[in-house]
Amino acid sequence: MSEFVNVAVDAMGGDNAPLEIVKGAVDAVNESSHVKVYLTGREDVIRSELTKYTYNKEQVEIVNATEVIETAEPPVMAIRKKKDSSIVKALNLVKDGTCDAYVSAGSTGATLVGGQVIVGRIKGVERPPLAPLIPTEKGCALLIDCGANVDARPSHLVQFAKMGSVYMESVMGVKNPKVGIVNIGAEEEKGNALVKETFPLLKNCPDINFVGSIEARDIPSGSVDVVVCEAFVGNVILKMYEGVGATLIKKVKEGMMTTLRSKIGALLVKPALKNTLKAFDLEQYGGAPMLGLKGLVVKTHGSSNSVEIKNSILQCITFTEQNINQKIKEKITMEEN
Amino acid sequence: MSEFVNVAVDAMGGDNAPLEIVKGAVDAVNESSHVKVYLTGREDVIRSELTKYTYNKEQVEIVNATEVIETAEPPVMAIRKKKDSSIVKALNLVKDGTCDAYVSAGSTGATLVGGQVIVGRIKGVERPPLAPLIPTEKGCALLIDCGANVDARPSHLVQFAKMGSVYMESVMGVKNPKVGIVNIGAEEEKGNALVKETFPLLKNCPDINFVGSIEARDIPSGSVDVVVCEAFVGNVILKMYEGVGATLIKKVKEGMMTTLRSKIGALLVKPALKNTLKAFDLEQYGGAPMLGLKGLVVKTHGSSNSVEIKNSILQCITFTEQNINQKIKEKITMEEN
Repeated sequence: MSEFVNVAVDAMGGDNAPLEIVKGAVDAVNESSHVKVYLTGREDVIRSELTKYTYNKEQVEIVNATEVIETAEPPVMAIRKKKDSSIVKALNLVKDGTCDAYVSAGSTGATLVGGQVIVGRIKGVERPPLAPLIPTEKGCALLIDCGANVDARPSHLVQFAKMGSVYMESVMGVKNPKVGIVNIGAEEEKGNALVKETFPLLKNCPDINFVGSIEARDIPSGSVDVVVCEAFVGNVILKMYEGVGATLIKKVKEGMMTTLRSKIGALLVKPALKNTLKAFDLEQYGGAPMLGLKGLVVKTHGSSNSVEIKNSILQCITFTEQNINQKIKEKITMEEN
Repeated sequence: MSEFVNVAVDAMGGDNAPLEIVKGAVDAVNESSHVKVYLTGREDVIRSELTKYTYNKEQVEIVNATEVIETAEPPVMAIRKKKDSSIVKALNLVKDGTCDAYVSAGSTGATLVGGQVIVGRIKGVERPPLAPLIPTEKGCALLIDCGANVDARPSHLVQFAKMGSVYMESVMGVKNPKVGIVNIGAEEEKGNALVKETFPLLKNCPDINFVGSIEARDIPSGSVDVVVCEAFVGNVILKMYEGVGATLIKKVKEGMMTTLRSKIGALLVKPALKNTLKAFDLEQYGGAPMLGLKGLVVKTHGSSNSVEIKNSILQCITFTEQNINQKIKEKITMEEN
């Protein structure tokens, strides 16, 4: 057994690859002596990037991969055909046990498909969800599923609730995390067919703290810790965070620039405001884990810079050291009995 | 034929009934000589409210209704049992032709059910959607459907696109309004089963300006005029507007109050900021019409005050004068041929 937590990092994925990815990897190993990074991608390019930095050579390894999967490529085909791509190579490192975890800012589709096909599901897990942390007034909540399994079934949502509870408890340290299902009203009889079928199943789960339906309006205020929903709805929630946030901040800035008086006020307000709003930034939480796989697969934002890559890599240490996958396995198996 | 546009107003519905509802009705008739309001509810209560104001007596009538449908009541049962409720009485005024339109800040469920059961659908309309206007950077867009028909079918969504186009063109004056379908990616092959089936149908509609998929992130920036989606998703979009908006505004206020410097800045910034943010307030647009019914049914926010009630009543004038229902009938029938 290695002394390190080993993380495979797709050096070619994302808008700022390979520069920011390589920098993030170096920053991670310089911050923690517990982690070793395997950078997959074009060896010459990565090597020339690495010459810019000082770091412990034992903690970084390059794994050559000559191909790159583009974001626009149909993911199933890309995973099948591009065997020598940075994504496939990195996922194979997790599959063969060289690495514990995988981090990529590249194609979400390829990561989701490759995670299932190459790394594989934990026995008993029906569908592995993508579960980002989203900011709330009280800190953060886990949005599960936010894009992996459209048209999910009730049993999938029950597993999401269980896996999400394990994550929030073990990785985020939330005691007995509150679980809510996204609905169009607070009453039990409300909802679409999926929610109506799932509600009683969640209510009868003895090993989660299910608090009932949650209206989308109450997600940002932080009324639950685990926000359970089907992937299409989860994706809409995440994107509305981004969209409404961006538009409102723009409006606030515009508002401050309308009069001379407000312009002076803006100068005074700016530093304090920046600080507060930072706590409500979606990207601060690093990558979104895909839960229920035999290794940890983390998808970070396509526009990730070195700080987010570093945070995503460091997050893999807690995940691995907390033995999350073992805990998920136990919780899911409990359901089967 | 009456010289007025006749509007039935549920005087007992909403958090601020009957005070704000009656005040809104009086303000409406004082602003327009084209409208007559029928206030339904407890006659003695309404009459005593009305004594506070001066207005043209010909433009206001009271229709006694002794019962009230509460928001928490199961709507189907409530509509069936409470024949003498303010909601049922008001809807009947539309059904029997006394009124052209209906406005209520009360139970959404009862209004949606009653709209279909009492007022009835235009021939050819499969499901009447609830379609609020939502603020965008460019003005506003129509969100259709936002709560009337969960688990809708592709043919319903196609009708939503057509009815929404008629509304944006005739009521809001948007030439050749852009129609988008909410999806989890911009590409045609993305989406859940419903969206994948609906996409080609919309693409083949000759009488709408379909521009393709729209990610939720791009709704607030105003990239389309008619946002087509299934009701569960539409409800999540609307509630995320409210939730993210409320939390961000709170954070901005908190940020401004953290230091002495920022507090002084806040005083200077406040008036200009208030003005700009007002343009991004969900409630400014008055009520959400339920389209495709034989009369106009408008649901306003439960917390509506007199201004919103007044705007909702006045909005009925444009709707009726523009003969929207005739235009919807023509567009829907065109599809059938």
